[in-house]
Amino acid sequence: MKAEAEPVSEAGEASRDEISTHEMNKGISILDLILRTIAAAGTFGSAIAMATTNETLTVFPQFTQVRAEYDDHPSFKFFVIANSIVCGYLALSVPLSIFHIIRTAAKKSRILLLVFDLVMLTLVTAGASSATAIVYLAHKGNTSANWFAFCQLFDSFCERISGSLIGSFAAAVTLMLVIVTSAVALSRS
Amino acid sequence: MKAEAEPVSEAGEASRDEISTHEMNKGISILDLILRTIAAAGTFGSAIAMATTNETLTVFPQFTQVRAEYDDHPSFKFFVIANSIVCGYLALSVPLSIFHIIRTAAKKSRILLLVFDLVMLTLVTAGASSATAIVYLAHKGNTSANWFAFCQLFDSFCERISGSLIGSFAAAVTLMLVIVTSAVALSRS
Repeated sequence: MKAEAEPVSEAGEASRDEISTHEMNKGISILDLILRTIAAAGTFGSAIAMATTNETLTVFPQFTQVRAEYDDHPSFKFFVIANSIVCGYLALSVPLSIFHIIRTAAKKSRILLLVFDLVMLTLVTAGASSATAIVYLAHKGNTSANWFAFCQLFDSFCERISGSLIGSFAAAVTLMLVIVTSAVALSRS
Repeated sequence: MKAEAEPVSEAGEASRDEISTHEMNKGISILDLILRTIAAAGTFGSAIAMATTNETLTVFPQFTQVRAEYDDHPSFKFFVIANSIVCGYLALSVPLSIFHIIRTAAKKSRILLLVFDLVMLTLVTAGASSATAIVYLAHKGNTSANWFAFCQLFDSFCERISGSLIGSFAAAVTLMLVIVTSAVALSRS
């Protein structure tokens, strides 16, 4: 009697385990989708904020106009391009993310997505860091290289470019969480 | 006869599958160890090359000496610190990587290592990108901000700092491969 009962209970346990893994992975996949949306919003905001920043000043003694634009600096251009690419990628990855909510056991597509997520994380980090290096210079200048801190003149320009970095860094942190959730889902599927 | 033979052959297949997964994961773990060593060498080389760079020039008309040092620039200091931290971490992660060669089915420690790898990838990318932004400025200058391209003076200094970036970028690419191999190992264990 006992010998017959055991396999049934084992099978029951195994199926319960499978159900809990399935639901756990569903939860992870939903979290993944939410994080992707947040990261996309961050990169979108950053790209728009940086790309629309410019300031024109009238220097009084001579009444000449000086103008600061984001695309005077290659690092800022790279920042806008990097954030746009990452935002576009995140929008495109949403269908695959939704597919993972339905097919929780998918492995290959998760690994594929993880590879692209990694590349995009590196891209957004590179964009944010190089822009930060220039923003720092704009604020502090550099006496040894004789680089002038132009934020002393272009006040509102500098505030905008500094603020636009936040979305990008937030997106980088969110993408790191996306990759970790993918790894956890992979280990459970 | 057939009904009895089938379970045996299934069990044999399952154990063959387990062996092949075990050997596959062993191979992946060995690859992980090799990649870690390469990345450590890259960050070590970058940190040393950047930290030992300086140049003293004598400007002729006045016979004054001008000196360029890597730590005139906060971005270069950050580059050295970031590469040193990543190099130290990679050295410390080797024992855990060796542990994964022996215990190929380990999951939690792989996820832990993946999280740290991600943080280190972001750190080394940030260091390399911000240093690159400044190196680019040093080479090209910026006319709109009136920043002078000091590479026109400090020739060998600029060559050294440009060269030191290579190791860091190589380390970033290698760390990306490390994370992908971890994810593949996680999906198979």
